[in-house]
Amino acid sequence: MDKRKFAVLGGDLRSIKLAEFFASDGNEVKVFGFSKGNLDLGKMQCSNAKEAIEGADVVLGPVPCSNDEETLNAPLSAGAIYINDVFKLMSKNQLFIAGRISNKILQLSHVYNVYSIDFLEREELAVLNAIPTAEGAIQIAMEKMPITLHGSKTLVLGFGRVGKTLAKMLHGIGSHVYAGVRKYSDAAWIKSYGYNPVLLDSLKDVLGQMDVIFNTIPSLILDRDHLEKVSRDCLIIDLASKPGGVDFAYAEKLGLNVVWALSLPGKVAPTTAAFFIKETVYNILKELGV
Amino acid sequence: MDKRKFAVLGGDLRSIKLAEFFASDGNEVKVFGFSKGNLDLGKMQCSNAKEAIEGADVVLGPVPCSNDEETLNAPLSAGAIYINDVFKLMSKNQLFIAGRISNKILQLSHVYNVYSIDFLEREELAVLNAIPTAEGAIQIAMEKMPITLHGSKTLVLGFGRVGKTLAKMLHGIGSHVYAGVRKYSDAAWIKSYGYNPVLLDSLKDVLGQMDVIFNTIPSLILDRDHLEKVSRDCLIIDLASKPGGVDFAYAEKLGLNVVWALSLPGKVAPTTAAFFIKETVYNILKELGV
Amino acid sequence: MDKRKFAVLGGDLRSIKLAEFFASDGNEVKVFGFSKGNLDLGKMQCSNAKEAIEGADVVLGPVPCSNDEETLNAPLSAGAIYINDVFKLMSKNQLFIAGRISNKILQLSHVYNVYSIDFLEREELAVLNAIPTAEGAIQIAMEKMPITLHGSKTLVLGFGRVGKTLAKMLHGIGSHVYAGVRKYSDAAWIKSYGYNPVLLDSLKDVLGQMDVIFNTIPSLILDRDHLEKVSRDCLIIDLASKPGGVDFAYAEKLGLNVVWALSLPGKVAPTTAAFFIKETVYNILKELGV
Amino acid sequence: MDKRKFAVLGGDLRSIKLAEFFASDGNEVKVFGFSKGNLDLGKMQCSNAKEAIEGADVVLGPVPCSNDEETLNAPLSAGAIYINDVFKLMSKNQLFIAGRISNKILQLSHVYNVYSIDFLEREELAVLNAIPTAEGAIQIAMEKMPITLHGSKTLVLGFGRVGKTLAKMLHGIGSHVYAGVRKYSDAAWIKSYGYNPVLLDSLKDVLGQMDVIFNTIPSLILDRDHLEKVSRDCLIIDLASKPGGVDFAYAEKLGLNVVWALSLPGKVAPTTAAFFIKETVYNILKELGV
Repeated sequence: MDKRKFAVLGGDLRSIKLAEFFASDGNEVKVFGFSKGNLDLGKMQCSNAKEAIEGADVVLGPVPCSNDEETLNAPLSAGAIYINDVFKLMSKNQLFIAGRISNKILQLSHVYNVYSIDFLEREELAVLNAIPTAEGAIQIAMEKMPITLHGSKTLVLGFGRVGKTLAKMLHGIGSHVYAGVRKYSDAAWIKSYGYNPVLLDSLKDVLGQMDVIFNTIPSLILDRDHLEKVSRDCLIIDLASKPGGVDFAYAEKLGLNVVWALSLPGKVAPTTAAFFIKETVYNILKELGV
Repeated sequence: MDKRKFAVLGGDLRSIKLAEFFASDGNEVKVFGFSKGNLDLGKMQCSNAKEAIEGADVVLGPVPCSNDEETLNAPLSAGAIYINDVFKLMSKNQLFIAGRISNKILQLSHVYNVYSIDFLEREELAVLNAIPTAEGAIQIAMEKMPITLHGSKTLVLGFGRVGKTLAKMLHGIGSHVYAGVRKYSDAAWIKSYGYNPVLLDSLKDVLGQMDVIFNTIPSLILDRDHLEKVSRDCLIIDLASKPGGVDFAYAEKLGLNVVWALSLPGKVAPTTAAFFIKETVYNILKELGV
Repeated sequence: MDKRKFAVLGGDLRSIKLAEFFASDGNEVKVFGFSKGNLDLGKMQCSNAKEAIEGADVVLGPVPCSNDEETLNAPLSAGAIYINDVFKLMSKNQLFIAGRISNKILQLSHVYNVYSIDFLEREELAVLNAIPTAEGAIQIAMEKMPITLHGSKTLVLGFGRVGKTLAKMLHGIGSHVYAGVRKYSDAAWIKSYGYNPVLLDSLKDVLGQMDVIFNTIPSLILDRDHLEKVSRDCLIIDLASKPGGVDFAYAEKLGLNVVWALSLPGKVAPTTAAFFIKETVYNILKELGV
Repeated sequence: MDKRKFAVLGGDLRSIKLAEFFASDGNEVKVFGFSKGNLDLGKMQCSNAKEAIEGADVVLGPVPCSNDEETLNAPLSAGAIYINDVFKLMSKNQLFIAGRISNKILQLSHVYNVYSIDFLEREELAVLNAIPTAEGAIQIAMEKMPITLHGSKTLVLGFGRVGKTLAKMLHGIGSHVYAGVRKYSDAAWIKSYGYNPVLLDSLKDVLGQMDVIFNTIPSLILDRDHLEKVSRDCLIIDLASKPGGVDFAYAEKLGLNVVWALSLPGKVAPTTAAFFIKETVYNILKELGV
């Protein structure tokens, strides 16, 4: 593989791990924005953004890129790193790659003639991120349940990236896996994989038997009518981004145990998350011929 | 489930099995076109198409519907069953459902005001048919190889319906599964499932180690350049429909063992194939409110 | 199944769960020794041991049966329950069943002419208890590691009940499983199951690559020499009962992350643990014709 | 690994494969007894037993060693190879290793002061041979059944080496696996592995639903009473050595489809079988310090 020069700016421990991965693959790496971390970053460490960016092929921003649309998300940095300062320092031949780049930041990059790419929009990263998400969900289930997943009845709502990955792991642990979907073709896949398909319009028939329900559908699936069918001993883990798939208020009223678990990859497996970002960045560069 | 009246016309043993499945689910079933089969079809048996079709909700044709675009594919029928005769006997409220209905037959159905549906165009049936296809491919591999699939290196080219299903089964038997794909996101899925991803542009690097290669990609993947990398002991099973994915002539010249296996579901598991058609027909009827 | 009369004495929440299982299977159940638990035990609740024992077919003691060889292990009881009082109250036709009955208590039971059985000596319970043990170990690994188990290299030392069960679950989650054993025949099994066998005398060759090591062998396997080969990022989880299989002091000196996890079933999945005890008690009674 | 000198005498294609494996591992190999095979054995080929045996560390006999207790089982040899001639040619420092060495031959080896070892008595080979046995059984089932194994109900009788291996593979293909055993602890293992345990004394309750039954128990399990419960569409594959586990005559009378499949490894996967023998021979030599 070709060696490149990377500048890693801002971000949390994941960004540091990412920088280390780049370096151990033989790339030249400079970092800026981690001074509060009390970390030994050796000669990678730069004292300002300019030093880090100069000569780099790729400038790596954090995930999410920014929380305020002005500065990089840099919790370990002593001072703010302004995005337009970064873009100002970059030349036309340098790439800016980060996660969750907002429209506003994207437009700013255009203004500065910087080519920017959001790695979270890459399908392969979305597929890979389903792995730590699924493991994180399983960890939560293990922690909260007085029974083993092995031998229990688990329902996965939705059969997209997270649904498929989670169903496979639960099956691998020995759980009796049910998966709730809308389409006949998804039901066929579920049958093919050896799980039990449930069509969403007959979901109520099985809810009462479940020991744990994992929702991955980002719309109100577990509404009042459905929640009333759920067993009082059942744990509900909602993995869907806002607004989630559960009527949380009503679930609480019923005394149901609900956990809304978001952004699991960075929380439960930051090193793996960084590794997947690295692989995706390499794919991007390979496609661009960088 | 609602009970319906079915007329099953023509086809091979799969059609008879299908008729039996409909009957054992409590539906009323009449059949025509199996007189040569020497089968005891009891009171389902009709002496002509009119008797079978009269009063039916659904007329079930064979798969493929026709080999000559004029008569039903009815190998067990004493005489030819003309498709336009069938359509002539049908009323506006009756459905015609069959497999692989050509454009010409489709247009003919319009002329006669018959609503016709091709079950082979249903995604769920395509997904389910991958199961007998994969098992058939495994059976061929077991028959032709002097080594076990367990512990051997198997390469699946393509990760669509058959590729996914086959990879899962091979893994389940204990094979070391490699899967060759073009897209990074498919490679991510393959990694997620625990197999070894191979990008097609670096396929040559691994070909020499493989014990068996299953191709599911319907374009010339295993051309001269690639075939020359394949080990002389390797078995190649091409599951892709015409024109297939192997340069058969060149493979023969190299002395490679190649099997081109098509239409496996009806051959290796006709009963299962009929069962999946039944399920799909029910889905169609449920969607149409019949 | 025949209905019986059970008296459940002492124990923790597992014993209460066990009583509830017996009751929901239609048996008659009385309990004593849970007054501090603030639990609604309804009419099962007795105000003294005599009331509970009278008329019972089986008297169920806790697990472990006793911590002091004099009184039942009864953390939820307001007062001490003396074992010789219990035996005194029992007649020849009543069985005493508990977990980890010491020799002293066993002899006491002989003195009182009480037939006592230790369910922890039942092979089927030992097999079943490996399930919550393995899940508990996986939960700890997930909590302590910054990487996913999926894709990581995991070493299981020993291929007995816990080793086999753990290896299967880790493989099911997508881990690359290595298993260290002494015997060629165990290595053959490991290969057959699709894991990577490692003979203990060449263990050092692979230790450095492992991300997590689970030990199930109750003798000093991970001694100084071996620990020195282990990567600093590797997590070690020792599941072996005393004296364990790790030189803990030396591991600490090396800065290795070691967790010694014992008695997991009752801790991580008390309800499942109670369910398995119930099943085992039924097997005992069936064999004895009770 | 140390290099040794091997003499391979008699046997079928498996023995030739074994000789090739030894050679490709860098050992010195001589063979005798394959002149009828029309094979190019190059400089391994010897013109008499003396030439092959001279200087060898190990003399490898066939499996089974002999069919008449006088000559080696050497179907590809032009002339008979007398076992006492072989032993006469051997010195005290040479090992004789073969498969299924009868007591008579064993005693003969003592007379000639030859140390002989039967590799079929090695536990690791028995474990490994379960792999081709299980695959062979699956191949037969696929060939004989009009339904897929995926989704079908399969019963494995016995949970020893073949039973365990077969159950795992069937599960891996997507079959609903039932396993019939006598002991509660085996039933616990079956549950742990995710299959459905059936105690043999309640076998009759499930027999009628099975699509295929694999027997591995070498005593009459499927007697008249049991066979009468089996569905007419069910396939029975008996893998048990003589006398088998099925009342074959009665099964035929009932019109049941029964296959008695013995010695599968050599038949369905001779190369794999030879490979496993090679590994086992290496283990033997390592243990003996040869």
